[in-house]
Amino acid sequence: MPDIAPVLDHLDRSVDQSLERLFKLLELKSISTDPAYAAECRKTAEWLVEDLRSIGFTADVRETAGHPMVVAHHEGEGPHVLFYGHYDVQPVDPLGLWEDDPFAPAVKEVEPGRKVITARGASDDKGQLMTFVEACRAYKAVHGKLPCRVSILFEGEEESGSPSLKPFMEANAEELKADFALVCDTTMWDRETPAICVGLRGLVGEEITVRAADRDLHSGFFGGVAANPIRILAKALGEMHDENGRVTIPGFYDGVEETPDDVLKIWEGLGQSAKDMLGPIGLSEPSGEKDRSVLELVWARPTVEFNGIHGGYTGEGFKTVIAAEASAKVSCRLVHKQDPEKIREALRAFVRERVPADCEVTFSPHGGSPAIQLSYDSPMVTKAQAALSEEWQKPAVSIAMGGSIPIVGDFQRTLGMDSLLVGFGLPDDRIHSPNEKYELSSFTKGQRSWARILDALATTEQAA
Amino acid sequence: MPDIAPVLDHLDRSVDQSLERLFKLLELKSISTDPAYAAECRKTAEWLVEDLRSIGFTADVRETAGHPMVVAHHEGEGPHVLFYGHYDVQPVDPLGLWEDDPFAPAVKEVEPGRKVITARGASDDKGQLMTFVEACRAYKAVHGKLPCRVSILFEGEEESGSPSLKPFMEANAEELKADFALVCDTTMWDRETPAICVGLRGLVGEEITVRAADRDLHSGFFGGVAANPIRILAKALGEMHDENGRVTIPGFYDGVEETPDDVLKIWEGLGQSAKDMLGPIGLSEPSGEKDRSVLELVWARPTVEFNGIHGGYTGEGFKTVIAAEASAKVSCRLVHKQDPEKIREALRAFVRERVPADCEVTFSPHGGSPAIQLSYDSPMVTKAQAALSEEWQKPAVSIAMGGSIPIVGDFQRTLGMDSLLVGFGLPDDRIHSPNEKYELSSFTKGQRSWARILDALATTEQAA
Repeated sequence: MPDIAPVLDHLDRSVDQSLERLFKLLELKSISTDPAYAAECRKTAEWLVEDLRSIGFTADVRETAGHPMVVAHHEGEGPHVLFYGHYDVQPVDPLGLWEDDPFAPAVKEVEPGRKVITARGASDDKGQLMTFVEACRAYKAVHGKLPCRVSILFEGEEESGSPSLKPFMEANAEELKADFALVCDTTMWDRETPAICVGLRGLVGEEITVRAADRDLHSGFFGGVAANPIRILAKALGEMHDENGRVTIPGFYDGVEETPDDVLKIWEGLGQSAKDMLGPIGLSEPSGEKDRSVLELVWARPTVEFNGIHGGYTGEGFKTVIAAEASAKVSCRLVHKQDPEKIREALRAFVRERVPADCEVTFSPHGGSPAIQLSYDSPMVTKAQAALSEEWQKPAVSIAMGGSIPIVGDFQRTLGMDSLLVGFGLPDDRIHSPNEKYELSSFTKGQRSWARILDALATTEQAA
Repeated sequence: MPDIAPVLDHLDRSVDQSLERLFKLLELKSISTDPAYAAECRKTAEWLVEDLRSIGFTADVRETAGHPMVVAHHEGEGPHVLFYGHYDVQPVDPLGLWEDDPFAPAVKEVEPGRKVITARGASDDKGQLMTFVEACRAYKAVHGKLPCRVSILFEGEEESGSPSLKPFMEANAEELKADFALVCDTTMWDRETPAICVGLRGLVGEEITVRAADRDLHSGFFGGVAANPIRILAKALGEMHDENGRVTIPGFYDGVEETPDDVLKIWEGLGQSAKDMLGPIGLSEPSGEKDRSVLELVWARPTVEFNGIHGGYTGEGFKTVIAAEASAKVSCRLVHKQDPEKIREALRAFVRERVPADCEVTFSPHGGSPAIQLSYDSPMVTKAQAALSEEWQKPAVSIAMGGSIPIVGDFQRTLGMDSLLVGFGLPDDRIHSPNEKYELSSFTKGQRSWARILDALATTEQAA
């Protein structure tokens, strides 16, 4: 097996050039949600194609109904990996809050010994995807080949809901199918601690509307006799959690697994207390199931949350009205093997049981994606963990995310492959906000990390 | 005692003239909530003063911070009564829904033998107050005197919350204090059945706001850990009623009395089923305490109703947000001796107990008036009942009202006098709506009824 040390050396010696390339990419205004920037999105895809070709990839701009994809392939002897990233960025409003032009990237020293790259997309996701591209470039320059067979898929619509991704994946399944996917769109645990994300919660949303009388009523004439939809709705929602924060909907916990003790211990070792997590937002007591750590609650436990509620008179002062209807937006975060459609049905049944026969309840579905639970200890994860630990001189931790990354589920369902989620972003990168940044150390050590991971994966058995 | 028969004859012979006077009053656009009609309000007060003087009252327009009052006095030998009415009317929007000009009164035959007076204020309250004025006019014309000592108070701000009424009453307590008040602002049971209102529910309103985190949160990152104010609020509201519709707030029923069996029997005799009351609004099941009739529920039982609720994202689609705050408007209708301030405190304590220590709840009070429970069988009521039954040839029933008439409580508290609530309006009079009407029979038999009542009251012992 070729030696990795000269690759790392090469990366260290090429920082100026890799930054120069990243800056060129960051200067392109690839805002996917704004049609005014469609040409800029295409230019970005074309730039990436040229850059990948310069490494030795066969690469093409591929049309979709929206912004184009970039697809590239490079031969290799090891397993076949598909790297995913997105070249589009969030809009930059409000522009007045930016300290610098969002499309004029710069490196700034924010404290002695700590530099950051500033620009829209620096962290999400241009800086992240270039860590992988630079790792490939250096490996190829040093050894004349890559340690794995590498395919690359960059999309240009991630920030606008990825409408073309699934159709494109289905239409090109043969070409894109690899042994596993590599995704670089997540974060480290902190600036010194690398992390692999092994869990993403799923999501089921429902809008619930309760209707009682066929008109708004005066509470003087009808109070105490006519059904009040706010009362019915509040009762139904109020009964969805017990005194211990556990969800009471029958069947809700079907498919939820207990987190392995050794993983819980690792999470415990991260030393994230309720105070650490809740203090900055002005709270102190976790609202979820008792006797579970805050990390377990957001990473490995399902929730029912109420995202909005509305009914009756909500303006200034008072109106003694009994409203004709009231509605709430409810969403469940799912974990492990919870089935989104079963959860949806269970939620609806729970509400229906609490609506009197002469009233009406309607439901409007929103979303419905299962959780992603990747292995804590597959060969792929174990090797990546070792490579990351070696690079950062600190054990890489398995983390999970409370949010959802739909692409990972699509890779599993459409292409039958698991993903390795490694990223070097940080929670304070201000992605989607003014003054986005990416740590320079994330960019440089990120490149070295991918070089090590690719090298380690070369000897991994193919998943199939 | 003078004979009542010639007074009734006189009234019957004067219908054309009394209608003419009522029309003049109805033509005046005394919309109190719209400053553009301030001069019209004053003209209305002046018209009433002139009309009362023509009967022999000493009458004056009396200034307030808002629209003026009309105060009038007439000597008499019997007990001293204070008649209350209001000369202001509701706005007429939406004007397009009126069949005729709201200020061009007319008499229309709506079915063979049934005529109605149409105009804004025909029922609320100009038509009603003129029944009393015409009764006085006829009595005086026939007998040269009145059977009681009569004072009159007409206000011009009832439709805008009566801001000047209490200060005026306090400043003129000596002048206005009588043995009891007569109020003509209520309804009959139906077109043939006269009624005396002996109960009015009180009202306590609270706006409740629950605050959790100091900002809106992403439910992916914080769902299951951060307190959700909608959940806290829904749980608190949802627990305020038990499965039988009974309010669970400790102490809530203190001061609530059971309605006497004979009164319940009378109400039962009215034959108002749940279907009769709820069918027209698209419902069938009473939502209040089980095993009580719908009339008892609205007339003699207290309620907790939710008039509005709001929190989080309520626009189109979905936003997976955990809101920083949520709020609800809650009102309690009170009966009998329930103490508004104790109820307010009990409600607040109930909510506070359900708010986690790291969250905040604030309350904003609205209103706070106790219920009015008048005697079912005082001499005043018994005499009025006999007089009404004689006039309508049908027993007058004791009814109650789910709504509130604050003036009656003010008379009790500020002037220490009970009220006799007799009115000839009907639930279908469309007060506050386009095409308001007053039955012609209400106007003519209402005059005769007041003549009989005044005559009967002449022999009543003074309350003091």
